[in-house]
Amino acid sequence: MPNSQGGPEIERLIQAFAKLPGLGPRSARRAVLHLIKKKETLMQPLAQALGVAIEKVGICSVCGNIDTANPCGICQDPSRAALPLCVVEDVSDLWALERAGAHQGRYHVIGGTLSAMDGIGPEDLNISSLIERVEKLDVPEVILALNATVDGQTTANYIMDLLGDKSVSVTRLAQGVPMGGELNYLDDGTLAAAMKSRRPVTD
Amino acid sequence: MPNSQGGPEIERLIQAFAKLPGLGPRSARRAVLHLIKKKETLMQPLAQALGVAIEKVGICSVCGNIDTANPCGICQDPSRAALPLCVVEDVSDLWALERAGAHQGRYHVIGGTLSAMDGIGPEDLNISSLIERVEKLDVPEVILALNATVDGQTTANYIMDLLGDKSVSVTRLAQGVPMGGELNYLDDGTLAAAMKSRRPVTD
Repeated sequence: MPNSQGGPEIERLIQAFAKLPGLGPRSARRAVLHLIKKKETLMQPLAQALGVAIEKVGICSVCGNIDTANPCGICQDPSRAALPLCVVEDVSDLWALERAGAHQGRYHVIGGTLSAMDGIGPEDLNISSLIERVEKLDVPEVILALNATVDGQTTANYIMDLLGDKSVSVTRLAQGVPMGGELNYLDDGTLAAAMKSRRPVTD
Repeated sequence: MPNSQGGPEIERLIQAFAKLPGLGPRSARRAVLHLIKKKETLMQPLAQALGVAIEKVGICSVCGNIDTANPCGICQDPSRAALPLCVVEDVSDLWALERAGAHQGRYHVIGGTLSAMDGIGPEDLNISSLIERVEKLDVPEVILALNATVDGQTTANYIMDLLGDKSVSVTRLAQGVPMGGELNYLDDGTLAAAMKSRRPVTD
């Protein structure tokens, strides 16, 4: 019986792991073997953590963040209310900004970017809820922290147009040389953007 | 609160995933985000498959294979009894041979290789159980299907010495040009081994 190593229970587990991003059938098999060998120290804690997360974790109905509370902890934090609203593509971007401590206000996760190639239009993203929220909240500023990709910037432009007639200032992240970046390794676009947005040294 | 994105439940889940081979903290976070977004279609089936595997899957006390039965399905199959016994380093090697349909007999998983560097001696591997099994089973042949690495071949030599005084023929896998292999991409060792073990074309 080829392809039945370990029986259907293990095969099903390997297939479930193989659906995770970054894991293929081969690495899923390796992960499952590792788990089975360390049943007490790895497999059971993982199963338990999964169970707890399934039970408790959900998507915030206000901003799209993932949290155990709904609205999420960030949306419930009153100290964040009057600060700029930061628009991100994905929860992972929100987490990255939180890890960096780069934003003190609230967020809005739009859940992707417009993409003609992948057939993703405005109705597939949380953009109308963003516009409603901006109208309702009366925030001083909307920061478009979308990825510096073509699709990300197209989406930023689209949102900027929608917010153009609102009494809110719309900003986007600065583009330039990343920290520790070496000029001769940077792409032309980044170099051109950094040159265009150059600032006086006294700043 | 940096590093508390999503709360302790998600953090614990990310940490559990980060311990899998091939996943680091970053890819674990990505996998967990993906899972939470597809709670019904991915996360719950994974948790269920894990639960079933924890309950049912174990290590075969005879050969070291991983299976829901103990002894495993291969050890219980009477048609495999009188055939050669194949010695492998790891369960993943056993599965690879089964997938390839390359071996019809039973297996013995020794669980690694001798390694002076990592301080792994014969007592850390299932070698004494192999010798006992060979004496008891009276198999016609022991195939040493260990990896063609230095440690693998050292271990093969060690086992060959132990089996030298038994009335069993000991073989190892052929070394040579892999299927589809192009000579100018092969390493010197493989080329030399293939040349040394050349066979008449009528074979």
